[in-house]
Amino acid sequence: MSEPASSPLTLPKGFQTAALAAGIKPSGKSDLSAVVSDTDCVWAFAGTRSTTAAACVTRNREVYAAGGPVRALVVNAGNANAATGKRGERDNADIADALGSVLNVDMDGVLTASTGIIGHPLPMDRVLSGVEHLPEDLGTDAAAFATAIMTTDLRPKTASANLPGGARIVGVAKGSGMIHPDMATMFAFVFTDAAVDGPGLRAAFSAVVARTFNAVTVDGDTSTNDMAIVLANGQAAEVALTDFLPALETVMRDLARQIARDGEGATRLLTVRVSGALTEAEALTAARTCCVSPLLKSAVHGNDPNWGRVIMAVGRSGAAVNIEGMTVAVQGNPVFAGKPLPYDDAAVSQSMKAEEVIFEIDLGVGGASGEAWGCDLSAEYVSINADYTT
Amino acid sequence: MSEPASSPLTLPKGFQTAALAAGIKPSGKSDLSAVVSDTDCVWAFAGTRSTTAAACVTRNREVYAAGGPVRALVVNAGNANAATGKRGERDNADIADALGSVLNVDMDGVLTASTGIIGHPLPMDRVLSGVEHLPEDLGTDAAAFATAIMTTDLRPKTASANLPGGARIVGVAKGSGMIHPDMATMFAFVFTDAAVDGPGLRAAFSAVVARTFNAVTVDGDTSTNDMAIVLANGQAAEVALTDFLPALETVMRDLARQIARDGEGATRLLTVRVSGALTEAEALTAARTCCVSPLLKSAVHGNDPNWGRVIMAVGRSGAAVNIEGMTVAVQGNPVFAGKPLPYDDAAVSQSMKAEEVIFEIDLGVGGASGEAWGCDLSAEYVSINADYTT
Repeated sequence: MSEPASSPLTLPKGFQTAALAAGIKPSGKSDLSAVVSDTDCVWAFAGTRSTTAAACVTRNREVYAAGGPVRALVVNAGNANAATGKRGERDNADIADALGSVLNVDMDGVLTASTGIIGHPLPMDRVLSGVEHLPEDLGTDAAAFATAIMTTDLRPKTASANLPGGARIVGVAKGSGMIHPDMATMFAFVFTDAAVDGPGLRAAFSAVVARTFNAVTVDGDTSTNDMAIVLANGQAAEVALTDFLPALETVMRDLARQIARDGEGATRLLTVRVSGALTEAEALTAARTCCVSPLLKSAVHGNDPNWGRVIMAVGRSGAAVNIEGMTVAVQGNPVFAGKPLPYDDAAVSQSMKAEEVIFEIDLGVGGASGEAWGCDLSAEYVSINADYTT
Repeated sequence: MSEPASSPLTLPKGFQTAALAAGIKPSGKSDLSAVVSDTDCVWAFAGTRSTTAAACVTRNREVYAAGGPVRALVVNAGNANAATGKRGERDNADIADALGSVLNVDMDGVLTASTGIIGHPLPMDRVLSGVEHLPEDLGTDAAAFATAIMTTDLRPKTASANLPGGARIVGVAKGSGMIHPDMATMFAFVFTDAAVDGPGLRAAFSAVVARTFNAVTVDGDTSTNDMAIVLANGQAAEVALTDFLPALETVMRDLARQIARDGEGATRLLTVRVSGALTEAEALTAARTCCVSPLLKSAVHGNDPNWGRVIMAVGRSGAAVNIEGMTVAVQGNPVFAGKPLPYDDAAVSQSMKAEEVIFEIDLGVGGASGEAWGCDLSAEYVSINADYTT
């Protein structure tokens, strides 16, 4: 199979990228890549809360806590370097050290990310040899980077936004399976040449993650390697956080929806909008519980307007609900308002044969709202995952 | 299709059952049934914690809180009578009232249970006409009852145990999909002619439920109608709780495993044993999170010893773990002990082609243990659920 085509997307000012096939993926596709800024970046980070987090997440979290600037990010796809013991921790640090050496940057200025199978040591000879050659072929196309970080993704995922003063935001993500981020994400890397307030960005980042990447689910399985990073090198223009954060959220939301749509085996995007909740957190929980329900996902796959599964999923989410005041609509068709409403089964089923299937739910107890994204569950998901290692 | 064959199983002394086809299931199979004791029963109950629980759960919970004895249980399959508004509540009460009338028992001595599709009013003319005819054909075979309460179950589920003094316990359950009980269960009805201490039984029941039905998962979706009930009419012999509770747990555990094995689309039983946990609750959570993981379930389906997915699932469960002291074995083959262990991929994969696939996990932090049960995820699950209503 050839790699998927993607339109070129120029990185913000001062950022460059390189990718090559180091021989980690058995397919021989590109699997090792880096993004480098030629000046220091302020940054923000969110990593998985999994108690079995991979070495890359643990180390990036430590670097983040230290508070210094960073210059580069190196990513390998095809091997998660998770559950690989002390050797995995050393390998991860060695990769940061190696890229730091060739770039002449301190290793604390280099972040790492690994994705792929869990529990296999990295082929370090090939990885380190690849890292040495990375800086030989630096370019500015974010799409090449987006392609190199893919595993079972079918499409590279990029999004961008323009900011006041000519600054830009470019985001890149990967997703597919084991997608149910917990206060972090799959991989989402966002680059900007805006000069922004670093402490303010750090403080605001987790709320933006909660409404975007943490509102995505493919299968309810939280990866050991999830992370979201934004790097700002300040080379273009100063941008106030009040302008920057909405643009950042738009880019992250766009990437989050792309991840859901490209979930393993997915044939369509599932969007669940919850209103009338007591709090935004409860709205997001109810919406995401609907998106992760295999019964609702199967119904979406079969164009089956089985809204009873929405009632079930909301009920198990724990969000406060007043069922007598609760309403549910499928693709704009009201189907429940405290009791079942009459509707045309065939017509609603037909309306579900769309690229995006939208459920709107009002919990009838408050004024908060939230939105989550998932995908349908197909037999293809099972066949992709029943034989991943062997 | 003919109904599945099952061996007759006599109910404990003083209990009788009847079942008929009231016309709720489109298939014309038996769908309305009751179990009646000819004397008062002490009892224990656990119902779903779903915030959108069905009328039968809500009413039984109220009857339980009132503290009186009960005499009968009436069950319909094919319609959950959930999310049916005030009408559904009235219909549910009317069913209890109708059976109470023909049995000449107060309606507060009649429990109800409904299972099937959510959001459709019951065909009350057919249901009430069926209830009137139920007492005409009372018998003592629990298997007929087990068959009448089935929906997409492939096999009726029964289990029994003998007690000192000639008393017996007979349990009946149903499961299939939307199985991830939250402090309750799918349907599990347990009958005994032992005379037991009622308040003691009530007090102990939730702990037994936690280790049995609440340790089962098919798809992570918690039903609106889950309940577990034990009825004791005391007609055979007095039995101390110290003798009764272990026998009850054995019966409930047997039923729980049958529910997992007969999960929608399942081809084998998945058992996860966790040791070395800080608390029993954490052990059970870690074990059940493994059992619900679609990635691990898919791997089991494909005989793929992809133990990295165990590391992932334990990590997202939130249970405390020391990954350096953690161990994982698949079908008795050690695959991880703080780091990946060498093993024969083909041989371990071959060993997974069994009726039961067992993962043993030690979290390396404490002395508590727990066990959970699930099933593999097959393409069949999707096809069963993609077209349930239409």
